[in-house]
Amino acid sequence: MAKAVLTPQSDDFPKWYQDVVAKAELAENGPVRGTMVIRPYGYAIWERMQAELDRRIKAAGARNAYFPLFIPESYLRKEAEHVEGFSPELAVVTHAGGRELEEAVVVRPTSETIINVFFSKWVQSHRDLPLLINQWANVVRWELRPRIFLRTTEFLWQEGHTAHATQADANAYALRILHEVYEDFARNVMALPVLVGRKTERERFAGADATYTIEGMMGDGKALQMGTSHELGQNFAKAFDITFQSTSGSSEYAWQTSWGVSTRLVGALIMAHGDDSGLRLPPALAPVQAVVVLVRDEEGAGERAAALAAELGDAGIRVELDDRVDTGFGRRAVEWELKGVPVRLEVGPRDLAAGTATLVRRDVAGGKETVPLEGMGRRVTDLLADIQSSLHRQALERQEARTVEAAGVDEARAGAQAGFARVPWDEIREAETDLAADALTVRCLQRDDGSIPGSSAENGLVATVGKAY
Amino acid sequence: MAKAVLTPQSDDFPKWYQDVVAKAELAENGPVRGTMVIRPYGYAIWERMQAELDRRIKAAGARNAYFPLFIPESYLRKEAEHVEGFSPELAVVTHAGGRELEEAVVVRPTSETIINVFFSKWVQSHRDLPLLINQWANVVRWELRPRIFLRTTEFLWQEGHTAHATQADANAYALRILHEVYEDFARNVMALPVLVGRKTERERFAGADATYTIEGMMGDGKALQMGTSHELGQNFAKAFDITFQSTSGSSEYAWQTSWGVSTRLVGALIMAHGDDSGLRLPPALAPVQAVVVLVRDEEGAGERAAALAAELGDAGIRVELDDRVDTGFGRRAVEWELKGVPVRLEVGPRDLAAGTATLVRRDVAGGKETVPLEGMGRRVTDLLADIQSSLHRQALERQEARTVEAAGVDEARAGAQAGFARVPWDEIREAETDLAADALTVRCLQRDDGSIPGSSAENGLVATVGKAY
Repeated sequence: MAKAVLTPQSDDFPKWYQDVVAKAELAENGPVRGTMVIRPYGYAIWERMQAELDRRIKAAGARNAYFPLFIPESYLRKEAEHVEGFSPELAVVTHAGGRELEEAVVVRPTSETIINVFFSKWVQSHRDLPLLINQWANVVRWELRPRIFLRTTEFLWQEGHTAHATQADANAYALRILHEVYEDFARNVMALPVLVGRKTERERFAGADATYTIEGMMGDGKALQMGTSHELGQNFAKAFDITFQSTSGSSEYAWQTSWGVSTRLVGALIMAHGDDSGLRLPPALAPVQAVVVLVRDEEGAGERAAALAAELGDAGIRVELDDRVDTGFGRRAVEWELKGVPVRLEVGPRDLAAGTATLVRRDVAGGKETVPLEGMGRRVTDLLADIQSSLHRQALERQEARTVEAAGVDEARAGAQAGFARVPWDEIREAETDLAADALTVRCLQRDDGSIPGSSAENGLVATVGKAY
Repeated sequence: MAKAVLTPQSDDFPKWYQDVVAKAELAENGPVRGTMVIRPYGYAIWERMQAELDRRIKAAGARNAYFPLFIPESYLRKEAEHVEGFSPELAVVTHAGGRELEEAVVVRPTSETIINVFFSKWVQSHRDLPLLINQWANVVRWELRPRIFLRTTEFLWQEGHTAHATQADANAYALRILHEVYEDFARNVMALPVLVGRKTERERFAGADATYTIEGMMGDGKALQMGTSHELGQNFAKAFDITFQSTSGSSEYAWQTSWGVSTRLVGALIMAHGDDSGLRLPPALAPVQAVVVLVRDEEGAGERAAALAAELGDAGIRVELDDRVDTGFGRRAVEWELKGVPVRLEVGPRDLAAGTATLVRRDVAGGKETVPLEGMGRRVTDLLADIQSSLHRQALERQEARTVEAAGVDEARAGAQAGFARVPWDEIREAETDLAADALTVRCLQRDDGSIPGSSAENGLVATVGKAY
């Protein structure tokens, strides 16, 4: 039934990715280079991601706020080190209100600077700390090699910015966001096992004292950095004069964190779970969890199919009824596979007469069976939970199968061609820059037990090396 | 107890507004003229507005999507009439990626043009209609006389854009959004009675065949346009070549609508319900619906206050515990009044020993009583419902008290100085431009029974005249 509407992954993974994005109607390129139009189906996935992340961010005590899109150019000179990283990526507004501006304004590449200007006003006393702020917004970084969702000139994201009284508090909060928001979201919502670790000095954010990361393995074995959480020390506090009166009365610089994830996660979702037939969406994020496909509208089948869809809706399932019987059944089945809907129920007059439907689960090839209509709400609810864990299990199995233990640089280089290579950090520390020449990077550092090191100088650390998006 | 921390409304309403925005920590001016920082308390109100509006928009069948911030300058030339209205308001990016752009890009003042470019691709057949799209986004219109929330260079909004097969469908949808989304939201969530009507030709959106509006009366008697819904005819369809193959096989231009509301609604909320002590928030939008204020922490009062707050939380109330006993009680009470929290429960050792608390409702002056702790969850839940209707009633009473029936232009001019003047449209039709010279405008046209006219040429229409923000 499934015609090859997509380039097979094994032929050309990037082409397969482009095909899926277009044919599942997730997004299109915008007219200005590197921008994208997120279509309703893609945006519905992002909305679910936002809701799940936002709930976790609020549970971690942060409050949402909104800072302006436009930043005076002078702000970006306050943190010189920071600017170095962004300057060629900036979009600059020189004209507005019908005339040339006296001071050009920059379209935010991040809100780090403007938020810190306000932090320096709002933070006065230790009573104002911790100050925990998050923002959902669009940001712009001019991209020369854009790739839809993964690297776009404009993208949507959340950026958290916090200020604390001590370094210990700041570091604990950066790790709390990493684990309770990002790792938990990746594993339990995106159904994606992730490496959770610390970036090397070479890979960390320029303004940070420590960068923590979650890294996922995509379908082609490459790594994708999915989210980062930074412990910033007092670097920005000193640049932006964020000081507070401590309990002892002295004036001290605040300790800070920042952390963010973006619409890049939609790209991660596509590449981590998709197969040659299209998307495979984890039920927790699927805009449509189950679709009832009416084969032919004869002998009252249309009404029965509608009733079945209603029953699933009543059971709390996000369901859609496909009764477009003037479109070929095979074509519609292919479309729902493309869109990655977790459960498809095919119903025709014969099935209904027998009191059954054909149930197809999207997470396994050929996962098709005939099931009774009776008790369908409960059956599909249970099946969705099963698909959620099945997708996680499959991604984990791939990650394990494509991860090799390497003793040194050469083995790491070989092993990381099609997956991850785990190698003693002490063995490759000196060779990190050489690896980069082969487009290989240390994705993160972990302790042997998988926990996060307090510093890259610790003994016995494991580096995971891979190719990255 | 309540010190005058705000300029009284009767002294200077605009100054009172500025004071409330600052002291209730709703927002601040951003560094670039006309931009604003929406602080957590203000943003939490906007988030609740968004959630309530979004639910209604989805119930009306529209789906969210996202279109790029940057629009090629050439797009804005496609709809000349449309551009006239915006040109001096545009912010233009001329440099990006470290060099001057070949074609300058405009920061969207609305997404009308770019969305219509994509509609022209997506709409091919009558089967693609209706196409119902909504977007939540920031937009930029350079403001020479900015006023926080009400008129800012950057603001947040939703803009809906739809395409239909017939004019009747388009018009019915524009009205559906007006009533089921905007009017319902204003009345039942914002607790604000609104005039619902049709704009005159002079006041309607340049690109529209009909503009429908909801208009609220603020505390100073002025009108605020809170939301508009446009029936666009085929104007944009012709400019952007949005055609479809009809059931009969002919190629036809689509019929369209667009509609939007913005962060201006936060300004409406402040000005419609606020009093000399600060905000008064309708419970449906209040980030904190009830606050438990601990007077002094003696004799276990702190624990009992915490238990009371927990009980209210369990009853589904958004509650906060204020146990900052090192700050004066009076100062804290003033702060909660400023923030407009609907219900305040003051508890001290003496109250708790007697098994009571002092309950203060924010919607009426001096609304203070001693109530038993027993059954507080139920009591506060009921009270919140009562406050929601009480605020609506008070706003309605003011609107009725400040609305006069006028027989002609002179009476309308006099009556509209401090409120609304209802006057026969036939009597002032010719004088509309003269009224504008006195900063008076026709806010909307209604039939005598309050329903919406099909055209401004209908006989017997009533025009409501007012001063507007």
